[in-house]
Amino acid sequence: MDELVRRVLDGDRRALARAISIVEDDGEDARELLMALYPHTGRGYVIGVTGAPGTGKSTLVNNMAKEYRKRGLRVGIIAIDPTSPFSGGALLGDRVRMKDLSGDPGIFIRSMATRGSLGGLAKATSDVIMVMDAAGYDRIIVETVGVGQAEVDIASEAHTTIVVESPGLGDEIQAIKAGILEIADIFVVNKADREGADHTVMALKMMLGLSPKTVAHHGKVMKTGDATLPKEGWTPPIVKTVAIRNEGTKELVDLIERHAEYLRKSGQLEERELKRTQADITNALQNLFLENLLSHITESEWSEAVKSVAARDTDPYSKAKEMLERHS
Amino acid sequence: MDELVRRVLDGDRRALARAISIVEDDGEDARELLMALYPHTGRGYVIGVTGAPGTGKSTLVNNMAKEYRKRGLRVGIIAIDPTSPFSGGALLGDRVRMKDLSGDPGIFIRSMATRGSLGGLAKATSDVIMVMDAAGYDRIIVETVGVGQAEVDIASEAHTTIVVESPGLGDEIQAIKAGILEIADIFVVNKADREGADHTVMALKMMLGLSPKTVAHHGKVMKTGDATLPKEGWTPPIVKTVAIRNEGTKELVDLIERHAEYLRKSGQLEERELKRTQADITNALQNLFLENLLSHITESEWSEAVKSVAARDTDPYSKAKEMLERHS
Repeated sequence: MDELVRRVLDGDRRALARAISIVEDDGEDARELLMALYPHTGRGYVIGVTGAPGTGKSTLVNNMAKEYRKRGLRVGIIAIDPTSPFSGGALLGDRVRMKDLSGDPGIFIRSMATRGSLGGLAKATSDVIMVMDAAGYDRIIVETVGVGQAEVDIASEAHTTIVVESPGLGDEIQAIKAGILEIADIFVVNKADREGADHTVMALKMMLGLSPKTVAHHGKVMKTGDATLPKEGWTPPIVKTVAIRNEGTKELVDLIERHAEYLRKSGQLEERELKRTQADITNALQNLFLENLLSHITESEWSEAVKSVAARDTDPYSKAKEMLERHS
Repeated sequence: MDELVRRVLDGDRRALARAISIVEDDGEDARELLMALYPHTGRGYVIGVTGAPGTGKSTLVNNMAKEYRKRGLRVGIIAIDPTSPFSGGALLGDRVRMKDLSGDPGIFIRSMATRGSLGGLAKATSDVIMVMDAAGYDRIIVETVGVGQAEVDIASEAHTTIVVESPGLGDEIQAIKAGILEIADIFVVNKADREGADHTVMALKMMLGLSPKTVAHHGKVMKTGDATLPKEGWTPPIVKTVAIRNEGTKELVDLIERHAEYLRKSGQLEERELKRTQADITNALQNLFLENLLSHITESEWSEAVKSVAARDTDPYSKAKEMLERHS
């Protein structure tokens, strides 16, 4: 394990691939590995890219990666297929397009597919980001393919979230994405050479005008830690790109860096980091406690408890209280 | 609170609406209420209905509810807009279509919008199901509007999951839904009078043939508790419906009841219930522990811990271990 950690920190690609597999499997070794890598994290800047299928996200991500390489930065890419449990499945077309990046040692690409619940996916994404961060990738781009709530959850891992739109998607799809608008720090209207691009820009501007983000400035109270919290002091800009011709990439990357600078200067980056750390410690506390408790509870006690709750003789909370009292 | 519980159990609609609001808010009262209602739950059968926007889910759900009413059963409907944080927002069109049900005292409809993370939404859905179950609704239909992983998570709350397709959606949309195919117990091809319906049925059959569900029968090992677990002994049937003309509804409801019977007879319903209870107790244990611990930790100790982990002097696990040892 020490050897693996050393090699990951040294930038060994095969070691990195193995380390990522270990944390994805979430077994015994995963925690040990993450503990060892943790002190080396905190420098990678995470960029989320999301939007509906067919908006050209993958090509855009390719362009961004190349632009960052020109600027001398190392780039990790995590491509998530949240709705496809087929690893190596239907959406691999997107991955194929990334082939032209794979020769560059300063770029590391990893595809992830969902395994069971989204909770699992969000945790795995967070862990893989951590490994890439420790391995010295300066910018980590997380690309999600979809239009659902999964993107909102994964976006909470990102420092800057980019929502990609393109002209010509049906109104229904636009409506469903209302929730996604809330998480955007930057909007991209890709395929901007197509008819309707200006219409899409206008529609975005209108939706932004109506969003709670704006309302919040007028005194509406929103829950802390809510994904829809207003990003005070930052108005999400709209960039037009034509990804297949690599147009607008430089402007987009400049905007990402400007947003990063804004987060740093306003103290939001630090505040966010502290909140995140707090959540990490809380999770660790709960997991350790549960492991400890479960090692004291016999199988028969546990199965008695489950049976009595399932039979509605009591409820889960009362039973848990009783078990805690017995073992403390 | 006792009064509220009594009125919910008596079938008072206003009390039910209030109880649901209380559990949605997830405050102090929520736990007390759920504890009191828990012994009265376990009879409601939960049906998940999901699929892409525009497939006609809401009309289908209306028809199902009416068919169940004909059979003398009470129906609760939970309509979820997982991607719309605007409560009262854009997707309310779907709700309007349900207006014709609202006069029936044997039907209770509740719309829910996401508030922050999906984790929160899945929990809230589960809690609202529990309240409707306690209030004596025999069938609880959970309708999700979307094509994302959110649906997979929410489907895990359902006993029978119905995936609705319709002819003429683009291939891209079909591909993105590959993950959703995995969770289906019954497929509905709605708008079956339209051109391409037979093509959609055939495409579904092909995708089913390729899915891990089939592969699993040939010895592939899958993780327990995984949403993609094969449903052994049950091959998901495909039903054609024309929801706007109420065609195919009876057949669909018959199939749901047949699936329920299958789950009961095969012991899967009970097994599932026990797993779920186990998860409920585990969650309760973790929450109670954390409350208890946090009441012992001073604010300054907590903020020291967060700072030292954020500064990478240590990692969350090591810090959590240290805190646990100090307080045990």
